[in-house]
Amino acid sequence: MIKAVVFDAYGTLFDVQSVADATERAYPGYGEYITQIWRQKQLEYSWLRSLMGRYQDFWSVTQEALAYTLNTLGREPDAAFLAEMAEAYNRLRPYPDAAQCLKDLAPLRLAILSNGAPGMLQRLVANAGIAELLDEVISVDSKAVFKPHPRAYEMVEEALGVKPENVLFVSSNGFDVGGAKNFGFRVARVARLPTQKLTRELEARPITPLTMFKALRMQEETYAEAADFEVEALSRLPQLIRAEQAESMRTADDRA
Amino acid sequence: MIKAVVFDAYGTLFDVQSVADATERAYPGYGEYITQIWRQKQLEYSWLRSLMGRYQDFWSVTQEALAYTLNTLGREPDAAFLAEMAEAYNRLRPYPDAAQCLKDLAPLRLAILSNGAPGMLQRLVANAGIAELLDEVISVDSKAVFKPHPRAYEMVEEALGVKPENVLFVSSNGFDVGGAKNFGFRVARVARLPTQKLTRELEARPITPLTMFKALRMQEETYAEAADFEVEALSRLPQLIRAEQAESMRTADDRA
Repeated sequence: MIKAVVFDAYGTLFDVQSVADATERAYPGYGEYITQIWRQKQLEYSWLRSLMGRYQDFWSVTQEALAYTLNTLGREPDAAFLAEMAEAYNRLRPYPDAAQCLKDLAPLRLAILSNGAPGMLQRLVANAGIAELLDEVISVDSKAVFKPHPRAYEMVEEALGVKPENVLFVSSNGFDVGGAKNFGFRVARVARLPTQKLTRELEARPITPLTMFKALRMQEETYAEAADFEVEALSRLPQLIRAEQAESMRTADDRA
Repeated sequence: MIKAVVFDAYGTLFDVQSVADATERAYPGYGEYITQIWRQKQLEYSWLRSLMGRYQDFWSVTQEALAYTLNTLGREPDAAFLAEMAEAYNRLRPYPDAAQCLKDLAPLRLAILSNGAPGMLQRLVANAGIAELLDEVISVDSKAVFKPHPRAYEMVEEALGVKPENVLFVSSNGFDVGGAKNFGFRVARVARLPTQKLTRELEARPITPLTMFKALRMQEETYAEAADFEVEALSRLPQLIRAEQAESMRTADDRA
């Protein structure tokens, strides 16, 4: 029985690609390139810092990743650009079906569990107007590790009082799907890019930085157990969950 | 005083790009793409498995990463291709200056510390004809974590009996430079791609998969303390170390 649905934020409810406009304005011709390297290094740094036992919050990691990216172009971020990027990160676009999905799931307990620092998450959720739709917005920050470290996922039970087997965790990020499965949640993977579509994009050439990003980040991972469910969009979740709940009830009835 | 020089293997002594010929033969038009995604996912999986406490040896991780890569093309690796790739990995080209560098450093204790599985490393070193030039070939395997976890770097003292402050660790991989500095080694980063050259390559367009790989993997990281030394090639190490040893002797004389 699913008692809580917990969402990843960056890439799952919110589109990290939506900083591309701001990076393109600041560095014409390099917006796409900067956006992809930035996101990739942001994730890498979160994993490497966790592995080394050198946690810094996600905004620090995000800034380090941006500095790395600009350095590859022989540039350094100035204070004005950093402030603009912080604002862009606070205003990442939610996916168009995110708010309606949360509304449709309302009888269940709903939360975000994110690598984001607490302040980043509060501003993100407030700006998107979805704060009232969530019971909890949980940052890994107090555990001083990032997902997919198991300690990060423990926070769900601590915050919601719901056992892992009663949690449906929703993520479009492969590392997070694997980490959540490894921890013991039921997991729905949001698979926004069918493999056939990616394969056609790779065939069409040229293979752009955005295509490389899709190839690295938007396909099912092979290093961990697969998700229990796969949906092509958040809008498909309510129906999936209703079917699952009906199935649980039937099984319970059969047992009774 | 430097008493031992310890090298990373993949990317530092051996060129991981040398599988590109074999992947291109098997998947014409996709050799470069496959090589880059494969290496990137191989590293990611080593970090994610370490973070999740789900270690599998580096050949397993390498195969998982290859399967992921081929899946993006709608393909699955068959047994013959996997066997060919295993052989390609056993025969990665050493960088042209690797053997001479080891010969020139001979009075010092010399070792490899690698994420590679023991069998992979033995075959790699034997095929390159450099086994006799090394005192130890150390695999992280018995620690069941990958670099940059500190436990991996502890193996150097255990194998060589040399304290971290007397070890010069040599790597071209940013995650490894950061991990080795964090652990307490003195570190030389092999910086084969000057930033200016990368920046020009990014300006020249198109930004290819290989350029993306260089941008992600061959520049100085910003999340960790910088290396103590930077060399553009392995061939520059012997002179650097001689200068350092002379400096250590002078300092010791001054103290006496």
